[in-house]
Amino acid sequence: MTVVVPEPDFQLAARLFDTLAQKTCDTLGITRASYGEGEQAAHDLIAQTGRSAGLATTTDVAGNLYVTLNGRDPEKGTFLIGSHLDSVPQGGNFDGAAGVIAGIAILASWKRAGFEPPGNVSVMAIRAEESTWFPYSYVGSKAAFGILPKAALDIVRVDTGLTLARHMAELGFDPQAVARGEAHCKPDRLRGYVELHIEQGPVLVGQDIPIALVTGIRGSFRYRDARILGEYGHSGAVPRVYRHDAVVAAADFVMRLDREWERLEREGEDLTITIGKLFTDPAQHAFSKIAGEVGICIDVRSHSKPTLATVKALVDTLSAEICKKYDVRFEFGPLTGSEPAEMDCDLLARFTAAAVELNVPHIQMPSGAGHDAAVFAAAGVPAAMIFVRNQNGSHNPDEAMRMDDFELAARVMARAVAGLS
Amino acid sequence: MTVVVPEPDFQLAARLFDTLAQKTCDTLGITRASYGEGEQAAHDLIAQTGRSAGLATTTDVAGNLYVTLNGRDPEKGTFLIGSHLDSVPQGGNFDGAAGVIAGIAILASWKRAGFEPPGNVSVMAIRAEESTWFPYSYVGSKAAFGILPKAALDIVRVDTGLTLARHMAELGFDPQAVARGEAHCKPDRLRGYVELHIEQGPVLVGQDIPIALVTGIRGSFRYRDARILGEYGHSGAVPRVYRHDAVVAAADFVMRLDREWERLEREGEDLTITIGKLFTDPAQHAFSKIAGEVGICIDVRSHSKPTLATVKALVDTLSAEICKKYDVRFEFGPLTGSEPAEMDCDLLARFTAAAVELNVPHIQMPSGAGHDAAVFAAAGVPAAMIFVRNQNGSHNPDEAMRMDDFELAARVMARAVAGLS
Repeated sequence: MTVVVPEPDFQLAARLFDTLAQKTCDTLGITRASYGEGEQAAHDLIAQTGRSAGLATTTDVAGNLYVTLNGRDPEKGTFLIGSHLDSVPQGGNFDGAAGVIAGIAILASWKRAGFEPPGNVSVMAIRAEESTWFPYSYVGSKAAFGILPKAALDIVRVDTGLTLARHMAELGFDPQAVARGEAHCKPDRLRGYVELHIEQGPVLVGQDIPIALVTGIRGSFRYRDARILGEYGHSGAVPRVYRHDAVVAAADFVMRLDREWERLEREGEDLTITIGKLFTDPAQHAFSKIAGEVGICIDVRSHSKPTLATVKALVDTLSAEICKKYDVRFEFGPLTGSEPAEMDCDLLARFTAAAVELNVPHIQMPSGAGHDAAVFAAAGVPAAMIFVRNQNGSHNPDEAMRMDDFELAARVMARAVAGLS
Repeated sequence: MTVVVPEPDFQLAARLFDTLAQKTCDTLGITRASYGEGEQAAHDLIAQTGRSAGLATTTDVAGNLYVTLNGRDPEKGTFLIGSHLDSVPQGGNFDGAAGVIAGIAILASWKRAGFEPPGNVSVMAIRAEESTWFPYSYVGSKAAFGILPKAALDIVRVDTGLTLARHMAELGFDPQAVARGEAHCKPDRLRGYVELHIEQGPVLVGQDIPIALVTGIRGSFRYRDARILGEYGHSGAVPRVYRHDAVVAAADFVMRLDREWERLEREGEDLTITIGKLFTDPAQHAFSKIAGEVGICIDVRSHSKPTLATVKALVDTLSAEICKKYDVRFEFGPLTGSEPAEMDCDLLARFTAAAVELNVPHIQMPSGAGHDAAVFAAAGVPAAMIFVRNQNGSHNPDEAMRMDDFELAARVMARAVAGLS
């Protein structure tokens, strides 16, 4: 049977991208803080668009938004098309929003055309995916399943200093219910979850391919607030032998860790190791002072749990070597992270089939970045992801997904979801 | 002939140290900004103390203060006991001030005792020695000789953003006269210059010796505001091969430079290399972002001009290697620095003789840090320095010169200066 699937409403999608950029731009890019003004503006826009299109909208206790088109047989359970609407500070317009807007463009056109999918389909706009705001991964999707740890509600947002619970309550949601584990998403009522997202690396651009179907999502461990403590001293007056230079210690640590990454990659391990922040203390550093302190963060990602464990052990060993060599101290601070996740084989096959039928060039690739899809996979919900080619990387104002590529991805998604029974 | 030299007034010295600390403390230490409130308070205190002691006071066009005791034969010219009264931000009470207070303690006691040295002796309180405020070395002493380059008057203070000329004028001094090269200090009218200063390293503490007589002062070159520019990217999504990581590039550069320092020191070269500031951009860095930019400063010091030239060439070579390896860019910004200086042999011999006569344990050592004495030496004025043992380094709030050590150094200085004809 060939299903005739209505074309997603790409004019609507283009308008939504524009409005969203207008409403949430700051001087250097796009800022939609988790449970902040920009994220809320995005949720309001999507909810209103859903209602105008005649779709049902609801939110859960954590403020995740669901825009639903009923299918022929609601008893089949709901298929979710989801992504997040928050962004990093001074990020781009597409990271997250593209997945939600694709879903809305699909459901709005289906509603207008009177097209009924086999079961219900909801667009889910997820809260607080970008853990730069609350240093915790997957706040919104975990809360949707009722599995956000109670302690996470006490985490403070880095810019406001206010707790997650406070921010939820201020927007009218119910942190107590979140704490009780009240779940809107129940794995046995969900047929699956798919997330369209810009690729956040250069692989599709490098290979000149518009979309990728994702095989799995990397897990991670992180020290977000580590410090290396040495001893301040006069740059000219303290001889080499007397120094406990935190900058040299940090540089040595970074290079040792980098050499280990090079080796592990050569041995075939999937891995990224990133020191995104490294800084002497602006209140104390000077060109004429040996640095007594360096702040550092460490982000390690892999599809393999054993590889993550190997690197964790290496961080311990290498830091101990550095402490001994320079007589400095490491304070690692809290360790956070997430588990690697596998995407669903059946869904992957269906999305691949849709891409083939539509003659859309595609590759399969793993996701280096984390995504809410990992939470759905971990909860036992079949999950899939489609990456869209994106110039200039992500988490910066220069993200440059092309609408042509977005449309190819949305068509593949629409065709696959329409056919899922 | 044995000269009976009056004991310096150490009660006065102790009171001056206390008052100075009271007047110029901030929350984290002592702050006496060059041409700022703290420095001016120190100058006012010293001038008033000089006048109360019956000594003549005057300032030059740049605001350097001279407190003078006439000698038996003013035609012999003036011998200067000098140091600076500014401090680094959140520094200690002794760096600079100890040399001025020692001079005042000596002249006040001589005046009271009616002791007349062979020629005039002036205490010189020098402005703006700490180049953390105006990024330029030896502002005050160069201005005293009329050799401060005109362009230096346009340098802005890092905290206020106002020019050196503006700061001078606001305190009632005459930047136009400084620009014209009006000199208060004329080499042929100066018999010599001596500066007592805390040692800013751990050598005297390590050797358990109270004072050192300085043989020479290191010169330097500096890049105070260099940057390494790579490319921001998502920490999980950009594979190793696509990265232009400014943190890894900076760490590699620091380690290569450090290895060269190790080698040069092993080969007997006098050298320090310090990366006092190294920082990702606080407005853009994040744990989940590959760093696209690192700020870095490089401070290199040596007694040897050829060694400075060797390291300058190494910085060029190594940075080019790093640019090639990581496809990043270096922006070095302005290059500043100072020439190495030799202390005067005759003066060194006289100070050594005084230390021996007074039975004060001492060593000879070079100065790793820069001092105004270098400007006097370069101008052809015989210059000497006495270092006082100092716990906990300098340029930090924990400087801990002991008064016993200070007194030994001041006695040696008094005896040597009293006998100089």
